Amino acid sequence: MNAMDKKVPLRPQDDLADALAGDMAAVNVLIRERMASKHAPRIPEVTAHLVEAGGKRLRPMLTLAAARICGYTGDHHIKLAATVEFIHTATLLHDDVVDESSQRRGRPTANLLWDNKSSVLVGDYLFSRSFQLMVETGTLRVLDILANASATIAEGEVLQLTAAQDLKTDEAIYLQVVRGKTAALFAAACEVGAVIAGAPEDQVRAFYNYGDALGIAFQIADDLLDYSGTSAQIGKNIGDDFRERKVTLPMIKAVAKATPEQRAFWTRVIEKGDQRDGDLDHAMMLLTETGGLQAARDEAFVWAEKARQALTVLPDHPLRQTLSDLADYVVSRIN
Amino acid sequence: MNAMDKKVPLRPQDDLADALAGDMAAVNVLIRERMASKHAPRIPEVTAHLVEAGGKRLRPMLTLAAARICGYTGDHHIKLAATVEFIHTATLLHDDVVDESSQRRGRPTANLLWDNKSSVLVGDYLFSRSFQLMVETGTLRVLDILANASATIAEGEVLQLTAAQDLKTDEAIYLQVVRGKTAALFAAACEVGAVIAGAPEDQVRAFYNYGDALGIAFQIADDLLDYSGTSAQIGKNIGDDFRERKVTLPMIKAVAKATPEQRAFWTRVIEKGDQRDGDLDHAMMLLTETGGLQAARDEAFVWAEKARQALTVLPDHPLRQTLSDLADYVVSRIN
Repeated sequence: MNAMDKKVPLRPQDDLADALAGDMAAVNVLIRERMASKHAPRIPEVTAHLVEAGGKRLRPMLTLAAARICGYTGDHHIKLAATVEFIHTATLLHDDVVDESSQRRGRPTANLLWDNKSSVLVGDYLFSRSFQLMVETGTLRVLDILANASATIAEGEVLQLTAAQDLKTDEAIYLQVVRGKTAALFAAACEVGAVIAGAPEDQVRAFYNYGDALGIAFQIADDLLDYSGTSAQIGKNIGDDFRERKVTLPMIKAVAKATPEQRAFWTRVIEKGDQRDGDLDHAMMLLTETGGLQAARDEAFVWAEKARQALTVLPDHPLRQTLSDLADYVVSRIN
Repeated sequence: MNAMDKKVPLRPQDDLADALAGDMAAVNVLIRERMASKHAPRIPEVTAHLVEAGGKRLRPMLTLAAARICGYTGDHHIKLAATVEFIHTATLLHDDVVDESSQRRGRPTANLLWDNKSSVLVGDYLFSRSFQLMVETGTLRVLDILANASATIAEGEVLQLTAAQDLKTDEAIYLQVVRGKTAALFAAACEVGAVIAGAPEDQVRAFYNYGDALGIAFQIADDLLDYSGTSAQIGKNIGDDFRERKVTLPMIKAVAKATPEQRAFWTRVIEKGDQRDGDLDHAMMLLTETGGLQAARDEAFVWAEKARQALTVLPDHPLRQTLSDLADYVVSRIN
């Protein structure tokens, strides 16, 4: 049997993309239509750079999948999926300014290609456009969910700003940051799909819980890969969080068990920012020896299991299994 | 008669503040309540710096006045007024990042006191909070108006970015920028006050037109004062727009009538940014001699008159006269 005959197992997000191809095509048309600006050509230039860069479009697919599983037959889910992607793109533009990033999805960031000003203002424009799109669905509850998610995102980002370089950051603060930067939009993306379908309350709640747990599992896995992945896997360099003095879950767990000597090390490299040759290797050793990496890994699996469990109250549907597989997939990267 | 006995004539915005004192107190309570963040103390710190700096609160007063004139007796106008002030504050935070400003309302800006990151993210937070507040009013039409205003604001800001340092900027582009940076929120602030009061369509339209024209008159006057005011009047230095190579209405009018030699001057100082001693004085002379300043002044008065005219269809109410006086006042500064 040669490689051509071998069935390459699809990743769950590829299954989702296949199953939702028609809807996603409509979402992409709407995105291109609405990112235009009659008056300011800079807007579609900047947005196209990011939108066309080939992100996974995972968040809009969650909205579409939730609507489908709940038996929705209308077309507002297309608008909501585009809304969710616009909010996501707006936060990426602002994140790159805040993080002073120069690379995103393997390409130079908008703030590098144009300037910080354009990234801030085009982000604001996309956020306003997302807001217009959701108003068009005429459903106040959807607006409420997405307004709350937006506030949680911004709050989490500010919290991350003040929590960085601070070893007092504990697991509760970390969880709040993770909900802001990742889980809030995952949860809202799922929830609005169920709401627009008029699903019963227990299903709406289940979708919220699924998205929330999936987002948390995803972000913990991402933070772990920063210490244990490969550059190809994470699209950036190993140890970037360490160098940027970001306090993530493995470190929080390691610091909680640190000896006075180890604590002095963490204080020097993270709080004082005095990093020397060999420090990253030493940090990796401490993260392993104190069980910080393993404990964080265990926690990611707990959240993936919560995500799968949340799906059990939902109606039987092929996409339900795909979402369950997706929860497995996000943590399979750290297995 | 000594100074104590002499009645000091109130400015119209002081009349508004007196007439709406009870409502404004409720708006201020709501603003302080909603700018809080359980999780991220940086947020109220940054916001308080700006919100408590004693801005004129003109935009929320427009919302309250419109609701009152239309006979509103509920309390959603308080939420909408706070919404409008939050949107305004969010745009100020982002503007200061974009303009790299160091002073606002006579105090150091948030981006200087904290950093650009905090200004971007706290701006996002306030924008999300404004969105939550307006959702609470449960009125889709209000959401539609404010979503559209937000998009116009962001679009105008991006347009300003690309129009700066470009002598091809014409009056149509200038008007679009001015609508974005000032008039869109003035118009929306007025319009939502009338909508929440359930006013008939012609009154809603009248309030939109009043706010739009007032905002345009206000911004043209501001741009004129940059060349003809005093530092005390404008809270910054004369000629800042010139030094920042911003193309505003007096210059657009002057460039349209420029001789080839004058055009070369504008190209050098604005497009090439090669500014030398005496250039500002020469620019002022050209703005005067070509009639650019006078033509811009005339246009500001035309917009103020449009604002006053828009009010004529409204019901008789003491605040209607105050709004009319306000239109006179914004251009009286350039008389």
